[in-house]
Amino acid sequence: MIQKLADKIRQTHAPVCIGLDPMLDYIPEHILKKAFDDFGETLLGAAEAVWQYNRAIIDAVYDLIPSVKPQIAMYEQFGIEGLKVFQKTIDYCHEKGLLVIGDIKRGDIGSTSAAYAAGHLGKVKIGSKAFAGFGEDFATVNPYLGTDGVKPFLDVCKEEKKGIFILVKTSNPSSGEFQDRLIDGRPLYEWVGEKVNEWGSGCMGDNYSYVGAVVGATYPEMGKTLRKIMPKSFILVPGYGAQGGKGSDLAHFFNDDGLGAVVNSSRGIIAAYKQEKYQKFGSENFAEASRAAAKDMIEDIDKALQAAK
Amino acid sequence: MIQKLADKIRQTHAPVCIGLDPMLDYIPEHILKKAFDDFGETLLGAAEAVWQYNRAIIDAVYDLIPSVKPQIAMYEQFGIEGLKVFQKTIDYCHEKGLLVIGDIKRGDIGSTSAAYAAGHLGKVKIGSKAFAGFGEDFATVNPYLGTDGVKPFLDVCKEEKKGIFILVKTSNPSSGEFQDRLIDGRPLYEWVGEKVNEWGSGCMGDNYSYVGAVVGATYPEMGKTLRKIMPKSFILVPGYGAQGGKGSDLAHFFNDDGLGAVVNSSRGIIAAYKQEKYQKFGSENFAEASRAAAKDMIEDIDKALQAAK
Repeated sequence: MIQKLADKIRQTHAPVCIGLDPMLDYIPEHILKKAFDDFGETLLGAAEAVWQYNRAIIDAVYDLIPSVKPQIAMYEQFGIEGLKVFQKTIDYCHEKGLLVIGDIKRGDIGSTSAAYAAGHLGKVKIGSKAFAGFGEDFATVNPYLGTDGVKPFLDVCKEEKKGIFILVKTSNPSSGEFQDRLIDGRPLYEWVGEKVNEWGSGCMGDNYSYVGAVVGATYPEMGKTLRKIMPKSFILVPGYGAQGGKGSDLAHFFNDDGLGAVVNSSRGIIAAYKQEKYQKFGSENFAEASRAAAKDMIEDIDKALQAAK
Repeated sequence: MIQKLADKIRQTHAPVCIGLDPMLDYIPEHILKKAFDDFGETLLGAAEAVWQYNRAIIDAVYDLIPSVKPQIAMYEQFGIEGLKVFQKTIDYCHEKGLLVIGDIKRGDIGSTSAAYAAGHLGKVKIGSKAFAGFGEDFATVNPYLGTDGVKPFLDVCKEEKKGIFILVKTSNPSSGEFQDRLIDGRPLYEWVGEKVNEWGSGCMGDNYSYVGAVVGATYPEMGKTLRKIMPKSFILVPGYGAQGGKGSDLAHFFNDDGLGAVVNSSRGIIAAYKQEKYQKFGSENFAEASRAAAKDMIEDIDKALQAAK
């Protein structure tokens, strides 16, 4: 799968994923109204609005990009109805040829991580049969529990040729509270990065390992160090756009082959029509605004990579 | 809710929760057969088997204990059908008067943690209305992202009088890989414990804060230290029984008032009929075996607490 991601990035010239993290206040009034008229102001109504919103955005951007990253929390908040739309969104993205990074940030003791790994990336055995639960291509994983919490994901990655991205240095303001604390002179995130490199060494594709890392665009200098610590890992880079990361911050996250990173933007793309720059599209044409914003993001990153050469 | 938990522990004399973490190979043949006959060897069939298994165990133990802890991964592995049973299990436990600790180990950047907090402990706003998604009483939370990933949970806890348990020192063998690393001479888990105490100081019930901690029964000495660092926090103690923790290891997790900890056992109770000790019940009477094992566990902990006085 990591090879597929690399190939698709080369094809599209877009080391990008779009975060499908729908909040109700991003969704245009006409979609909300129709969903609430049809299903009431209910969990089902909200889920339907999210689905119509996602589908229009996916239709508008799928040919530009290799991958999307739905954040499961934004669906889980609506309970079962929301999670059905998470599932539907994954399936629809697959129909459109997009790779799906499930932003699930799971991680637990061994037997429990095995259940998460089976449910999201692998198959669960039921009697004589086996079924995929959610069926993402990649998932994000929290490392706080150490190797035995990660290993079941590695096992499934090898079996199913899927991939994971381990949280190393997250994009949020207080990520340093624990992640930056010094251990034998080096911050915790570097120690986690060393482990990512080690875990990945046993799960190699052609050039990159199945084990990537999450490093926030908001911390470019740390990205530079982590790039060297984990040379064979793809870095998933959240925090571009709305969270403050800029194209010029991103060059250090990439390797010299122009690969090795996939930059995520969520709100900046899916709610682009709310920004002054894309207001001219109007809320009726929100998906076209998303397409324009995706193009601008791809160009911004391309420029930054060219300038860094 | 933390007050309710303390009250229920006093009433039942059982500082205990039972982990409803059903794996298909725990479920007796007759239940599996019926579910597969009715719904096929499918996700729905597996989910039905889990539900029948859970219900029988809940019916057999609910009067003995204050709380249960369903591990969401064991449901999530079966996709939507599994999560429907997670929901049904929560609702049924509430009908039976049990407090429900959702073992979800979520944690993300602020806006995303807010969605998890709303979906599991609070309410999500939809138009002019508000709905509970899963509606647990407590949830477990991963601290790796720092304060801004925890704060949304604190906000919901205050608003809804719910509670959380932050992962501090987990029960698994490799938990020390990051959690035990020394920072300024003290292990990371102690620094997380300090934060738990700080976060909790702003969310106090009568005697205990809404912010508890997870500390594995498998690490009793660390539990002793953490008890002192977080005097106002309930400690959720997994790892008793099948994972190797014994009653005699547990005394240090409690305060002098006999409160302050709730000890979890999962496999040791729900799959008790598979142990030599409870084999006499037979697989047909698995729920009775669970009841006997729950009674033994309560007695074991009570003895340990008496001996420590």
